[in-house]
Amino acid sequence: MYLHSKHFLDIETLPPEDIVLVLSTARSMKEISARKIKKVPTLRGKTIINLFYEPSTRTRTSFEMAGKRLSADVVNISASTSSVAKGECLKDTAMNLQAMNPDILVIRHSSPGAAHYLARILDCSVINAGDGAHEHPTQAMLDLMTIEEHKGAIAGRNVVIVGDITHSRVARSNIWALGKMGAEVTVVGPKTLMPPRIKELGVEVSYRLEDVIPKADVLMILRIQLERHRQGFFPSLREYAKLFGVNRRRLEGAKPDVLIMHPGPINRGVELEPEVADGPYSVILDQVTNGLAVRMALMYLLLGGGSADRL
Amino acid sequence: MYLHSKHFLDIETLPPEDIVLVLSTARSMKEISARKIKKVPTLRGKTIINLFYEPSTRTRTSFEMAGKRLSADVVNISASTSSVAKGECLKDTAMNLQAMNPDILVIRHSSPGAAHYLARILDCSVINAGDGAHEHPTQAMLDLMTIEEHKGAIAGRNVVIVGDITHSRVARSNIWALGKMGAEVTVVGPKTLMPPRIKELGVEVSYRLEDVIPKADVLMILRIQLERHRQGFFPSLREYAKLFGVNRRRLEGAKPDVLIMHPGPINRGVELEPEVADGPYSVILDQVTNGLAVRMALMYLLLGGGSADRL
Amino acid sequence: MYLHSKHFLDIETLPPEDIVLVLSTARSMKEISARKIKKVPTLRGKTIINLFYEPSTRTRTSFEMAGKRLSADVVNISASTSSVAKGECLKDTAMNLQAMNPDILVIRHSSPGAAHYLARILDCSVINAGDGAHEHPTQAMLDLMTIEEHKGAIAGRNVVIVGDITHSRVARSNIWALGKMGAEVTVVGPKTLMPPRIKELGVEVSYRLEDVIPKADVLMILRIQLERHRQGFFPSLREYAKLFGVNRRRLEGAKPDVLIMHPGPINRGVELEPEVADGPYSVILDQVTNGLAVRMALMYLLLGGGSADRL
Repeated sequence: MYLHSKHFLDIETLPPEDIVLVLSTARSMKEISARKIKKVPTLRGKTIINLFYEPSTRTRTSFEMAGKRLSADVVNISASTSSVAKGECLKDTAMNLQAMNPDILVIRHSSPGAAHYLARILDCSVINAGDGAHEHPTQAMLDLMTIEEHKGAIAGRNVVIVGDITHSRVARSNIWALGKMGAEVTVVGPKTLMPPRIKELGVEVSYRLEDVIPKADVLMILRIQLERHRQGFFPSLREYAKLFGVNRRRLEGAKPDVLIMHPGPINRGVELEPEVADGPYSVILDQVTNGLAVRMALMYLLLGGGSADRL
Repeated sequence: MYLHSKHFLDIETLPPEDIVLVLSTARSMKEISARKIKKVPTLRGKTIINLFYEPSTRTRTSFEMAGKRLSADVVNISASTSSVAKGECLKDTAMNLQAMNPDILVIRHSSPGAAHYLARILDCSVINAGDGAHEHPTQAMLDLMTIEEHKGAIAGRNVVIVGDITHSRVARSNIWALGKMGAEVTVVGPKTLMPPRIKELGVEVSYRLEDVIPKADVLMILRIQLERHRQGFFPSLREYAKLFGVNRRRLEGAKPDVLIMHPGPINRGVELEPEVADGPYSVILDQVTNGLAVRMALMYLLLGGGSADRL
Repeated sequence: MYLHSKHFLDIETLPPEDIVLVLSTARSMKEISARKIKKVPTLRGKTIINLFYEPSTRTRTSFEMAGKRLSADVVNISASTSSVAKGECLKDTAMNLQAMNPDILVIRHSSPGAAHYLARILDCSVINAGDGAHEHPTQAMLDLMTIEEHKGAIAGRNVVIVGDITHSRVARSNIWALGKMGAEVTVVGPKTLMPPRIKELGVEVSYRLEDVIPKADVLMILRIQLERHRQGFFPSLREYAKLFGVNRRRLEGAKPDVLIMHPGPINRGVELEPEVADGPYSVILDQVTNGLAVRMALMYLLLGGGSADRL
């Protein structure tokens, strides 16, 4: 089995069999990171560029380590230290980087569609590491992997996504991913942070966390982006925490084996109570571990690797 | 054949046979970047430091990839995150880095002569990646390589350099390089951006782009540094674009196979019209590809490699 | 012989036999950096993360090169480009990094105890690269190595530490290290920069540099942190330089083979006269070279290497 595309841009158009292939490959990759010698020669002589227009420790580090554990050469470029400061447009930056013959360009950008645009103009593989409020497809893949690990199967599970649905690329990618894998998805959050036609994506909508907690197999809690708070999208962090913060008291109504997930970084005490974040139902750190595995799998598959090959 | 010096500091004092050696080695190196496995063990166990006091995506990335494709260890240091913030002088920073036994120090600095100074005090090889308005010798090498690729030979070609000649290290290095290789060089730009005794370098001088376009085999267009604009060196970007911007209308008077070159990043619509930058005569991205090859060649040759050796 | 702990956090609690083991291993490591191929496969497949909350060229570069020369994969994270900007706490950042299975986390942080804290919560090895005004244990190790190289033995040597003792983690680590190895330590500096109960650490205290120079085998000069000057800890840099600056005139009263040491970066003309910093008694650059060797030794030993193994 091979991927249908040489790019990994979104979950919306990703064939379900590609999701299955990435997940099964990621399981093999995870095993590599648990070895004493955490490195395979698979991508030796390949070049991977991390082009990050938005800062992110965990995502950049995850991609960097993924490339290095496959023996690729990894080059990091962050907007703050780049020619971007000199006003160069994304196209020129990308075309110039491509002229150095990279194999994969990993792009994070604040504009929705940035990764798709690069995939149209570049010959190398493009991985979308988050494009504005559009998609964050590797996050959805690692979330699927984590759910599958803990629940055995994704199909039929009730996943409740909590928070600022409107601005969340994590929510958007997960809605597509979970839907394709047969999960039931509910989104819950304040009305001001709920996109008007969200139901068309096949999800249930709620505005009261208490109403939907009881049925949840998974609570996927989104990060509240404090910078948006300042822009007036919601009145008060305290009020948000009071109505939508996930805490022990609220979890009393939950299933005994509910999974607590969060893409990080957590605003402790806002969207998630520290005791819950660090509690027995939290799989937040598993998500990070699986993120590395998923990114290794994607790099391997995008550069022509197949499910039958031995690592 | 071997290089005459263990440093690569300027074109002004570079023997022409060294230029020829770098160009021929760079052709071999270019082939490596086109392979499926873009990596040779040539510089395994060597350490290369990129010490950049001025930001630059493309040049830093080019040197970083060059080192990695030769299997060297590459360490990046940028002024903003370094002890420079603590007020350490260049000499102390360089002496300290040398104490860690690097093999090559690549230096970009805003002071003319910075690379020469380091070459005098350090034992390791020094590559000048741009020193103020003085020289940018690897840029000139990649420009020569690009012209040779497209024109077969450099000798006898008419090269017109357009723009801010006074402040351009790219212009200065190319004037030396093209002269040594037998090209005819014309510089053209506003009087306020033309150094007073420029003719002593053996170039023709013009102040009207239209006058010199017809004879050009190569149009080498310099970047207008917008920050200088603010300092009052020229009155208006619109006026500059009107008089010296290279556009399709102006190219109607050009030779049918004129090469369009630019060191990047481009100010689209100022010194270069987008349609020309992306048009059929543009070899701007070839310059980037060749830059990587030239830097690989230099690293290899400076550390003792010769033309007879097999890669 | 093996280290007693899998972390390297401070000198205060370090068994003297571990100091001896690190020093002897560092001597073997130093030889590697002098080879033509400065790289051994010892830590291939290991991942080392440099997590720096305070900027430092030399220390970060030293750890980075140490890891690379042992063939480890090294990932740099600096606070300015990390999620720290998003307000994530140290614990969450560290736990997330650990979820990617690193082998060693090198941490520099402005809070005393930061490294100890991480060692308590993480499974991977932690190296303290400086925690506030508490300790900088790898600096003390490289200082010991440098003294031993030049003086044959540390025991019985008179070491005079000059400067801002109160705020110096370098002083603190060296006081412990030198004491454990049998040296006599004197601290000298202005009263305002001398901790009240410093004598309890077993050192002699002086407030006049002239009084203690004659007996010194080693003058260890601390960096004056100019930012503290602004906070009013001492009245005038000129006055400090006059009373405690080490210069040629003052050294007339010194032993003929006194060693001049400084952790860098130097404020030339403040705590140290340029002629002395660059003079025949200065071993400041040896300290840098030895720093790399000590860090290679630590990485090797912390990951299970022993004195009997061949590199």
